[in-house]
Amino acid sequence: MSPTELVAGLTFIEEIDRLKGIIRQTFLHDASRQENTAEHSWHLAMATLVMAPLSDEPIDTARAMKMALLHDVVEIDAGDTFIYDVVGTLDKEAREKKAADRLFGLLPSPLNTELRGIWDDFEKQSCPESRFVTALDRMLPILANSRSGGGSWKKHGILKSQAVEKNNKIAKGSKKLWAFSSGLIEDAVRKGYLVDR
Amino acid sequence: MSPTELVAGLTFIEEIDRLKGIIRQTFLHDASRQENTAEHSWHLAMATLVMAPLSDEPIDTARAMKMALLHDVVEIDAGDTFIYDVVGTLDKEAREKKAADRLFGLLPSPLNTELRGIWDDFEKQSCPESRFVTALDRMLPILANSRSGGGSWKKHGILKSQAVEKNNKIAKGSKKLWAFSSGLIEDAVRKGYLVDR
Repeated sequence: MSPTELVAGLTFIEEIDRLKGIIRQTFLHDASRQENTAEHSWHLAMATLVMAPLSDEPIDTARAMKMALLHDVVEIDAGDTFIYDVVGTLDKEAREKKAADRLFGLLPSPLNTELRGIWDDFEKQSCPESRFVTALDRMLPILANSRSGGGSWKKHGILKSQAVEKNNKIAKGSKKLWAFSSGLIEDAVRKGYLVDR
Repeated sequence: MSPTELVAGLTFIEEIDRLKGIIRQTFLHDASRQENTAEHSWHLAMATLVMAPLSDEPIDTARAMKMALLHDVVEIDAGDTFIYDVVGTLDKEAREKKAADRLFGLLPSPLNTELRGIWDDFEKQSCPESRFVTALDRMLPILANSRSGGGSWKKHGILKSQAVEKNNKIAKGSKKLWAFSSGLIEDAVRKGYLVDR
């Protein structure tokens, strides 16, 4: 690593500290506050490591962990878009692509190309790792909503049909994980965390 | 993954949500608040991924990333011990070992053995990955203190000699990283973030 590459790497490491300030709709399990995207990304990487055997397709665990760590780094510029936010979702792709250009562009070569490629694959859902990490990325807020007394579902009056529609792609990464998640959704309806329609 | 193993994995994933509530002495770069251990662990894993070529010894990057992700998970039970806290450091090892027994014990086999082994190696500093991840684990708070106007150094009146003594083991993982870090320490003395003795 040349001095120039070291400076480039450090600039990126400094820049991404800001992900700790991006607030998501999901609450901590103890319902004390909403989580930020940096700690969510840590939780997702840990879940990837622990749950890797649950993927329906064989995956490269190391690549999936990298994907989990960086999948939301674009939110530094683009902000977090709530999964049920119809308007925010309209220009989400364009905002996040621009952010990816800037942020991964800070990195030295060839790491910039490698990490941008992993992020692109996540966005396009074009590899087994992307489908499995997405499954966990959807499952974690379901778990958090279930444990925090309804969390973001209750706060925003989300319907069961919305929760199913937004989350059934979990099955594309892991059928077992979707069976577990839909069980949590059914349970949430019974508890009044989700509106039953 | 059997149903029993799936439940064990999910129990672990639920349990570690609590790491988001463990507050460290280090401040965010924008000085808005102290960081928690979950977001710190994310930052460390990202730094490991980006800075891997800086390690003086060859490392297995995937293993180093796992180590970064889980190195502080024991703080869920044992709390965070400030690096300059002499009394807290006395029983730190015993508290953290007990926490490791409980937390890694939640995981299904053979993952419990693999991850406990990685954590033990980090504690014993017995492999190249442990020395490099430790170097970054020390470097990140130096960077944060430098960027946040003194951060935990200023808050606790830390001396330059303390900062050097606690951080010079960075050189055991990466001489280039220690050269950079000691430059930041010198600069911090000039700015009055560290006491000059």
